[in-house]
Amino acid sequence: MSDKQVTIHELKERMATFVRERDWQQFHSPKNLSMSIAIEAAELMEHFQWLTAEQSQQLKREALQEIGEELADIVLYSLSMANFLQIDLAETIDAKMAKNERKYPIDKVRGKAHKYTSYLQQEEDA
Amino acid sequence: MSDKQVTIHELKERMATFVRERDWQQFHSPKNLSMSIAIEAAELMEHFQWLTAEQSQQLKREALQEIGEELADIVLYSLSMANFLQIDLAETIDAKMAKNERKYPIDKVRGKAHKYTSYLQQEEDA
Amino acid sequence: MSDKQVTIHELKERMATFVRERDWQQFHSPKNLSMSIAIEAAELMEHFQWLTAEQSQQLKREALQEIGEELADIVLYSLSMANFLQIDLAETIDAKMAKNERKYPIDKVRGKAHKYTSYLQQEEDA
Amino acid sequence: MSDKQVTIHELKERMATFVRERDWQQFHSPKNLSMSIAIEAAELMEHFQWLTAEQSQQLKREALQEIGEELADIVLYSLSMANFLQIDLAETIDAKMAKNERKYPIDKVRGKAHKYTSYLQQEEDA
Repeated sequence: MSDKQVTIHELKERMATFVRERDWQQFHSPKNLSMSIAIEAAELMEHFQWLTAEQSQQLKREALQEIGEELADIVLYSLSMANFLQIDLAETIDAKMAKNERKYPIDKVRGKAHKYTSYLQQEEDA
Repeated sequence: MSDKQVTIHELKERMATFVRERDWQQFHSPKNLSMSIAIEAAELMEHFQWLTAEQSQQLKREALQEIGEELADIVLYSLSMANFLQIDLAETIDAKMAKNERKYPIDKVRGKAHKYTSYLQQEEDA
Repeated sequence: MSDKQVTIHELKERMATFVRERDWQQFHSPKNLSMSIAIEAAELMEHFQWLTAEQSQQLKREALQEIGEELADIVLYSLSMANFLQIDLAETIDAKMAKNERKYPIDKVRGKAHKYTSYLQQEEDA
Repeated sequence: MSDKQVTIHELKERMATFVRERDWQQFHSPKNLSMSIAIEAAELMEHFQWLTAEQSQQLKREALQEIGEELADIVLYSLSMANFLQIDLAETIDAKMAKNERKYPIDKVRGKAHKYTSYLQQEEDA
């Protein structure tokens, strides 16, 4: 299996089977799944908490392995929610990307970290 | 575009192009991306915060639309991190699912919400 | 020590000393501390993830113990950020409560779970 | 009101009154409150998401104001959970600090960002 071969649908099916075989649909309410995604996201963050941005780009192989697993968990719970709510993720992502492309026109935002840089003191003083 | 047609690789490429065209790789360090995923996950949770698990299964069309967009954001930032760290997500998810299948054998966990139910008082008293 | 005796200032001082003695101010940037709070919040959530709202009210003593520690961590990191940014928490909380009291007038919101209930399907159909 | 005068108990009482007057105890289950804390923590993080650690220390007055409000929300929901579960926060924090002081002896950890630095590549190669 590799990213070039596998469709979103195939991953959704794999997760759906896993949940169904364990009769876990009862726990996988959208509310609970949203908590699960947030919890896995925090576990991912934990790997980077005390690193500088630069350090976060120079990870050991075993760290990368663990980080990959956290990413997998986040995507799996997201797929499970999409299954539950019958959301077509590819279609939704396509629409969201088109929206983002309009919202952040290349010539306006190139190289700029949008909104929150307006927060900095030097700009206030300038 | 639909889940049946689109591969993980195609979504990764779309996101990579979006980031590259805006010269945003400099902001998309793994550390920052892990924060982004966690922030989007919290926005997703916000939709369910005050609902019961049952209510969270009876959502209006417009709520579903917004929830779909939050899910899209979570997956997009996850793809961006996979791009940055050169992680093959399909392969990683495949390995993680295999691990989960071994960890939660069907005959042992069927219908049970694993670890945290051991927390409940009634069981303590029983 | 008990809630009736201890002021916010005393807790802030205790945390400030802990951080200073370990020369950890360098890691306790507001950015890192915001991640720490979010990570501890997720660890707290983990205790409730698969429980119903009702079950989350019937916890064993040892669960309560662990939950108390997570709450302590969240408050400690919040105090550390207040220290770093020289925020008077009592004053800020007082102002925020006054704002909330105006935003949610008792006679309008009594017994209602504000915004997100408008999300439910039955209301759409009604 | 200021941090030097206000006890934890007084803040807990203020929050308890606010919740009781609105009959919101029914929504403030520990499960829901844990979600609320995590959501507010993410809103806090949002202020720092695209800033460097250095930039996160040079905030404008209006940013500080907003950040103070997010911190207030986090502490208020934490107090509400402590109210609900009848947890004495000062006592719990005292015990947790004592535990941390033993876990991170000054002479061993001074100036070191504990666990996750072992993640960096240079150390692997060294």
